[in-house]
Amino acid sequence: MAPKFVPTASEPPAGDPRHAARATRSAGREMRSRLLDGASRLFREHGLSGTSISDIAAAADAFPSQITYYFRTKEALFVEAACRDMLYVARAAEQAALKAHTPRDYTRALVETVTATDSVAFFAEALTLTRRRQDLAPLVERTIERLHGEGLRAYSNQIERHGWNTLRDPDATSRRFWALAIGVMVEGYAVGRSPDELSREMLRVLGDQATAKPAGDSARLRLVGDPNASGSSDGETSS
Amino acid sequence: MAPKFVPTASEPPAGDPRHAARATRSAGREMRSRLLDGASRLFREHGLSGTSISDIAAAADAFPSQITYYFRTKEALFVEAACRDMLYVARAAEQAALKAHTPRDYTRALVETVTATDSVAFFAEALTLTRRRQDLAPLVERTIERLHGEGLRAYSNQIERHGWNTLRDPDATSRRFWALAIGVMVEGYAVGRSPDELSREMLRVLGDQATAKPAGDSARLRLVGDPNASGSSDGETSS
Repeated sequence: MAPKFVPTASEPPAGDPRHAARATRSAGREMRSRLLDGASRLFREHGLSGTSISDIAAAADAFPSQITYYFRTKEALFVEAACRDMLYVARAAEQAALKAHTPRDYTRALVETVTATDSVAFFAEALTLTRRRQDLAPLVERTIERLHGEGLRAYSNQIERHGWNTLRDPDATSRRFWALAIGVMVEGYAVGRSPDELSREMLRVLGDQATAKPAGDSARLRLVGDPNASGSSDGETSS
Repeated sequence: MAPKFVPTASEPPAGDPRHAARATRSAGREMRSRLLDGASRLFREHGLSGTSISDIAAAADAFPSQITYYFRTKEALFVEAACRDMLYVARAAEQAALKAHTPRDYTRALVETVTATDSVAFFAEALTLTRRRQDLAPLVERTIERLHGEGLRAYSNQIERHGWNTLRDPDATSRRFWALAIGVMVEGYAVGRSPDELSREMLRVLGDQATAKPAGDSARLRLVGDPNASGSSDGETSS
């Protein structure tokens, strides 16, 4: 959500033209945010072609002209709503993963969060649209950069905090996570998979991202050999 | 390509009604195939909404009514063309990878083939469309099954033939390859990446799929592993 404008005692009096400008900016931010919320809900449910500008205006209690004023086209609004939601779900996944104590729990928390909603599928639809609408590419590019930048930072923090060994360089790990999320969700939504099935499929193809510090020779052996060979589901953390 | 009908000496004479029926079937297959070729070219260039049924009919030297006769809707033709092209590129990748002598060359050949064309991006667009058109899901589902089935078979054959160690179970390896291909291509096409950039990104996030036999005792290795690998250019089989 965009931060709301909250007047305080130190604000200039209402008659001040700077105040008026700020209030206008704040109202604009609120309207933008409301339009994005309404658009997101309708686009997710009915897709781009199944949603009209007047549907979105009605959902957001706004006029169609306000949509064209703030976003210019339905396609631009689609891409902006999808980019916003993608960054939201990435942050929600990082938040959920903060509680994890083992690398597997960490990965599972990330995967369960991103497969619980259709935000990644929505974003993938925006990516597909952007291929044909290169005027919308700059926003997508900035979103991808933030996604990878924030993913890298979150993952690096976690492995440092817990002293885990990452199985490959953290940047590639984060990029792989999101590329796989897109691939698994695009395929899964096409054939109508449930969130549970999506989560299982993603965990399966993702595999381990990191291991806990080797606790001895047996742990090291498992690392060098087949990482899936250990019998238990959480075998690596023998603490 | 669908196999062409070739009359032989044992065929019944032209007046036979069975022959007429077969000739009609053959002409039908040829027309279907021509429509798919024309549609594929136009859809890849202009996308679904930028291509009309009459454009495709003109490109295939056919009537618009023939498209609706064979495929019913533009969307169904889009999905069928994309599914066909996806299976083609998968087979082309397997063919290219047959020449590889090391696991890395194998992976590189696969990746270079799938990033050289936009077949995977085209298929991803069909997957996105199918989410909203569940009547088209059965064809997509069959395509995905074949893709994974053939991918698993090709990979299993290669690791057995060369005596490589797969780093994870072959089915997950193949599924991961295609999920990553979709994710990398959807993102890459949105931001206008070149085939070279797509290939580098995909190799980077994919990482190793298999290793040559561990280099612990290289003499035995060459005996147990592929005897032809001794002259290979890649570092994995130390000499």
